[in-house]
Amino acid sequence: MPYDAPVADMAFTLQAVAGLQKLEGLPGFEAYDADLIEPILEEAGKLARDVLAPLNQSGDAHGAILNETGVTAAPGFAEAYAQFRDGGWMGLSAPEEWGGQGLPKALALAVMEMIHSANMAFGLCPLLSFGAIEALLHHGTDAQKQAYLPDLVSGNWTGTMNLTEPQAGSDVGALKSKAVPKGDGSFAISGQKIFITWGDHDMAENIIHLVLARLPDAPAGSRGVSLFIVPKFLLGPDGRPGARNSLKCIGLEKKMGIHASPTCVMEYDGATGWLIGEANKGLACMFTMMNSARLNVGLEGVAVGEAAYQTAFRYAQDRKQGKAEGVDGPAPILHHADVRRTLTTMRARVAAARAICYATGVAADLAVSAADEQARHAAKLREDVLTPIAKAWSTDMGVDIASLGVQIHGGMGFMNETLAGQLYRDARIAPIYEGTNGIQAIDLVGRKLSGTNGESMRLILGDIDATIREARATNDPQLVQIADRLRAGADALREASDWMLSAMKERDQDKALSGATAYLALAGDVIGGHFLTRAATAARHGDDMDARARHLALAGFFAETMLAMAPGRVPGITGAGSAFLDSSEALFGV
Amino acid sequence: MPYDAPVADMAFTLQAVAGLQKLEGLPGFEAYDADLIEPILEEAGKLARDVLAPLNQSGDAHGAILNETGVTAAPGFAEAYAQFRDGGWMGLSAPEEWGGQGLPKALALAVMEMIHSANMAFGLCPLLSFGAIEALLHHGTDAQKQAYLPDLVSGNWTGTMNLTEPQAGSDVGALKSKAVPKGDGSFAISGQKIFITWGDHDMAENIIHLVLARLPDAPAGSRGVSLFIVPKFLLGPDGRPGARNSLKCIGLEKKMGIHASPTCVMEYDGATGWLIGEANKGLACMFTMMNSARLNVGLEGVAVGEAAYQTAFRYAQDRKQGKAEGVDGPAPILHHADVRRTLTTMRARVAAARAICYATGVAADLAVSAADEQARHAAKLREDVLTPIAKAWSTDMGVDIASLGVQIHGGMGFMNETLAGQLYRDARIAPIYEGTNGIQAIDLVGRKLSGTNGESMRLILGDIDATIREARATNDPQLVQIADRLRAGADALREASDWMLSAMKERDQDKALSGATAYLALAGDVIGGHFLTRAATAARHGDDMDARARHLALAGFFAETMLAMAPGRVPGITGAGSAFLDSSEALFGV
Repeated sequence: MPYDAPVADMAFTLQAVAGLQKLEGLPGFEAYDADLIEPILEEAGKLARDVLAPLNQSGDAHGAILNETGVTAAPGFAEAYAQFRDGGWMGLSAPEEWGGQGLPKALALAVMEMIHSANMAFGLCPLLSFGAIEALLHHGTDAQKQAYLPDLVSGNWTGTMNLTEPQAGSDVGALKSKAVPKGDGSFAISGQKIFITWGDHDMAENIIHLVLARLPDAPAGSRGVSLFIVPKFLLGPDGRPGARNSLKCIGLEKKMGIHASPTCVMEYDGATGWLIGEANKGLACMFTMMNSARLNVGLEGVAVGEAAYQTAFRYAQDRKQGKAEGVDGPAPILHHADVRRTLTTMRARVAAARAICYATGVAADLAVSAADEQARHAAKLREDVLTPIAKAWSTDMGVDIASLGVQIHGGMGFMNETLAGQLYRDARIAPIYEGTNGIQAIDLVGRKLSGTNGESMRLILGDIDATIREARATNDPQLVQIADRLRAGADALREASDWMLSAMKERDQDKALSGATAYLALAGDVIGGHFLTRAATAARHGDDMDARARHLALAGFFAETMLAMAPGRVPGITGAGSAFLDSSEALFGV
Repeated sequence: MPYDAPVADMAFTLQAVAGLQKLEGLPGFEAYDADLIEPILEEAGKLARDVLAPLNQSGDAHGAILNETGVTAAPGFAEAYAQFRDGGWMGLSAPEEWGGQGLPKALALAVMEMIHSANMAFGLCPLLSFGAIEALLHHGTDAQKQAYLPDLVSGNWTGTMNLTEPQAGSDVGALKSKAVPKGDGSFAISGQKIFITWGDHDMAENIIHLVLARLPDAPAGSRGVSLFIVPKFLLGPDGRPGARNSLKCIGLEKKMGIHASPTCVMEYDGATGWLIGEANKGLACMFTMMNSARLNVGLEGVAVGEAAYQTAFRYAQDRKQGKAEGVDGPAPILHHADVRRTLTTMRARVAAARAICYATGVAADLAVSAADEQARHAAKLREDVLTPIAKAWSTDMGVDIASLGVQIHGGMGFMNETLAGQLYRDARIAPIYEGTNGIQAIDLVGRKLSGTNGESMRLILGDIDATIREARATNDPQLVQIADRLRAGADALREASDWMLSAMKERDQDKALSGATAYLALAGDVIGGHFLTRAATAARHGDDMDARARHLALAGFFAETMLAMAPGRVPGITGAGSAFLDSSEALFGV
C-alpha cells in the first residue's frame, strides 16, 4: 500500500504549533536551519514511501523467523535497513561529536513518524536503538561512549532494552536476573528476559543489549536493580565485534501484530556485561531510555493513525456504493456524509496527537538547550507532563483511528488482504508496551501532577490561556467559537487537576488513581484541542487558503466533538471511583 | 478458556429490565412459564461452557478448510453442532407447529448470547439459520414451509443469507445475480456471492441458501431484486436431501477473526431455486432476515464483551504485580484501582448492551403477540427504533470492551496464546456485517426517527421518564443522583432528536446524516443508562444485598461516566457536520 508523508502538515506542526523555531541559534543546534526542515522531511518521505511501505504487508504475512543461527528478518528488511542506515537517519538528532547530525529531536520524531507509518514493525528497530543511545549519552563512561556510540549512531549496530521477565512486567522491581562481578570490571549476566523487541536479527553487525539485573548484594525491589551493557558480539581489541557473547534468542512470540518485529525470549547465560551508571540505580538509567521510547511509542499511535487515514481515504475514493448528488452512477463512498465524518474524525485526531508528540519533542530539546535555567526548567516540566499524555493518548487514539479505518473498508477491512486490518492489529500493542497506558496515567497523576504540586499542569494551562487569547484576538467568529469550547475544556481540566491534587494529598490514593486514566484522557482531549486551535490561528498568517480552511475545519470539528464533551468528563474522574470502590466486595469479591 | 454464563444476571435482565413477564399468558406463548427461565439458561450455559468454549481457541488456530469436496469445519465443530442440534436449541423460539418450543425470542436471545460468548465463530451458523427460518415463516408458501421448516427448526439443516456481491455491499440493489424461469415453477440461479457466512460446511445434511437475484425483466436497482430458496441438495420425492444442486463454495476468505466460521465465495451456476414472496420484493423479504440477524449481531457485541470481561477478570485475579494494602507480597492486579475501573467499565457496558438487546427482543415478541392492536403497534415501534441501536451500539461496545480486555492482560494480551487477543479480532467484524454501523445510524435517523415523525423515539423517551420517576420515588440519594444524570441525558437525546427531525424535514440530509453515527451513540448511551437505572431500582425489591449493591454500582458508574457526557455529545450531532461539510473541498478535494 502506498504511503505519502504529509510533509507540509508535519513541517507546519513542527514550526507553527510545536514551536521548533525556538531552537534556532541555541547551543547544540548550530546545525539547525529552518529551511532544512522540508528537504529533510521530503527525503525521509521517499525512504518511507519507496523502501519501507512496500514491505509492510509482506512483513506481516511472513514475519521474522528463528532458526539455528538466530533470527532472520522478514524478506527485504535487511536491505531496507541498509538503506535506512546508509541514509544517516539513525543519527539525525545525535550529537555531532558521535557522528550524528545534531538536529532537534523533534525533527527526528517527524522522520520516525514516517517510518512507523510506512512500517511499524521495522520502525521498532531504530526506536530501541534511540533508547540505547540516550542511555549511553546520559549514563555511560567516556570509554563506553567511545566504544559503542559511533556504531549505534551510524546504525551499524542496533540497541535493545531488556526489562521484562515473566514475573516482572509493570513491576520492574520484581526482576530476578543476576549480575556477578568477574573481578576484571565486567559482570556475568544470567537470566531470562521476555518481550525483547528486535532482540536478535540479521540486519546489523552487532546488537547492544541494555539489560536490567541484580548485583549479588542488591537490596530487594526496584532499588536493587542495575543496568548493564551486554553486546551480542564482544568487542575485540580493535573495537570491532569479535567473539560471540553467551546470550541468545531462544524463542519468538507469536502475536497479533507487528509480525515482522521479532519479539524475543532472550537467555543470558553468564554473558559478559558492564555496568552503566551507578550500581542499584539502574531504574533511573532505564527511565532515560524509557522516556525517549515512550514518546516514540506515542508517535507510533500518530503514525498508525496517519497510515489508517490515508488507507481509508484512498479506499473511500475508489469504492463505489450508492448514489450521491452530482455523481453519475454509483458514487465513491467519500461522497456519503457518514464516511466523511469518519474520515474527519480520523484526521482531526491524528493532527491533535501529532501536535502533542511534536510539542513534547520540542520541550525535550528546550529542556536541554534553552538559553536560561528558568526556561530549561519550564521546558523540562512540560516535557515531563506531556510525555505520559503523548504516549497514552496518542496510542489510544491510534487504536481508535485504526478501527475507524477498518470500518470505512466494510467487509474488506476484515480481510487479510487489506492493510486496514493489519494496522488495527499492529496498533494494539502501542497502548501496552513501554509502560501500559494505565501506568502512564498513574505517572501523570503521581509524579507529574502531584509530584510538582500542580506546577507542570499549570504551565500547560497557561499555554492554553495564551492560545485562547490569540484565537479570540482574530475576531473570526468561527475561531472565537472554538476558543469558547477550549475555554470550557481548560476549565474542566483545571477542575479535575485541582481535585486530583487534593485527593492525592489527602492520601485517598485509590480514589485518585481510579480516575487517573479518565484524567489523562481529558488532558489529552483538551491539550489536543489547544494545539488544533493554535494551528487554526497560525494558519491564518499563511496564504494557502486550502490550508486555512483545513486547519479551521479540523479545529472546529474537534471542538464540537471532543472539547464539547470535556466538562462532562469531570464527574467520571471525581465521582465514578466511589461507585465501584465502595462496592468492590459486591462487584469483585475483594 | 472457561466461560460461565451469568445466568442470574441474564434472568434478572430478561424479567426485571426487559419486561419478559409481559408475555405471560399471551397467545403464542402458552408454553412460557417464568419458572422455566433459569433452568433453560442453566442448561444452555452447560453447552456453552462444556462443549463450545473449549473449541474457541482451537477453532481460531485451525480455522475451517476448503478442500475438493467442500468446506470442513474446524476439528470438533461437527460434534459440537450435533450436541447443539440434539439439545433442541435451534427451535427454542420457533412455533410449536414446526417443531419448535414456542418460547419467547427474547429467551432465545439469552441462549444465543451464551453461544456467542463461548464461541462466536460457531454461533454464526445458528444465527444464519434463525434468519432463514424467519424469512420462511413470514414469506414462504405453505408448501415451502412444510418442505424446509421442520428440518431447519430441528437444526438438521442450516441456513444462509446470500446478499453481497463484489460491487454490491451496503448498496444491495447493485447486485447482478440472475434468476431465469425454467418453466416448471423453478428458476435457474447464476452468479457469484461473497462473504457468505457458513456458506458451506460438513455439520448438517443440507444447507438452505436464501439468495437475492434478478429476474430477466426486473427493474434496475433495489426494486428489481427477488429472493430465492436454493438448497445445497435438492429435495427428493420423499422430502429428503437428494441430488447435489449446481452451487459450490469456490473460496474461503482469509480474515482477521472468526476463523472457524467459513466465509465463502459461493458460485451459483444455474442452480435450481424457488421464489420466496413476491417477485421484485426480495428486499422486503431479506429485511425480515436482516432484522432478526441485526439483533443477533448486536448480541454478539454483548457476548464478546461478556467473554472479554470474564477473561480479563480471571487474569486480574491471577496476575500478580506490585503491592496493595492488605495483601502480603505481590498483589493480584485486581487490587489496583485502575484495573478495577477498567473492569467496571467493561461490566457496566456489557450490562447496558445486554439490556438493550433483550428489550429489543421482548419488543419483537410483543409486536406479534400483545393483546391489542395499539400495544402491538407500540411494541413494533420500539422494536424498530431499538434494532439499529442494539446492533450498532452493542457491537461498537463489543470492540471497545474487547480492547479493554486486551489492555488488562498487558503484553500477554497481544500474544496469540491468550483468548483476549482473539476476542479483539473476532469482535471487529460485528460493526461491519448485517449492515455496517453507519448504515444502522442512517436507518435510525431516516426510517426509524424521521419515518415515524419522531413517534418511536418519543415512546422510548416516555419509557425513560417512567424510569426516572420510579428511581426518584425510592428516595435513595444515590438513585436520585443517577436519575438526575438520566434526566440530563434524556433531555440531550430529546434535543438531538428534535434537531434531527427538523434537519431531515428541511431536506438538509447531508447535515443530518453527518451526525447520524453520533446520534446513535448518544441514543445508545442514554437508553443503556436508562436500563441500568431500571435495573438498580428493580434490584431493591430483591433480598440479595450483593446484587443490589452491584446493580447500583454499575448504574452509578455508568451515570457518572457515560450519562454525564451525554449533554456534551449534542454539539457533535448538531454542529460538527458544518465544520467538514463546508470545507469538503479543502479536506477531501470533492
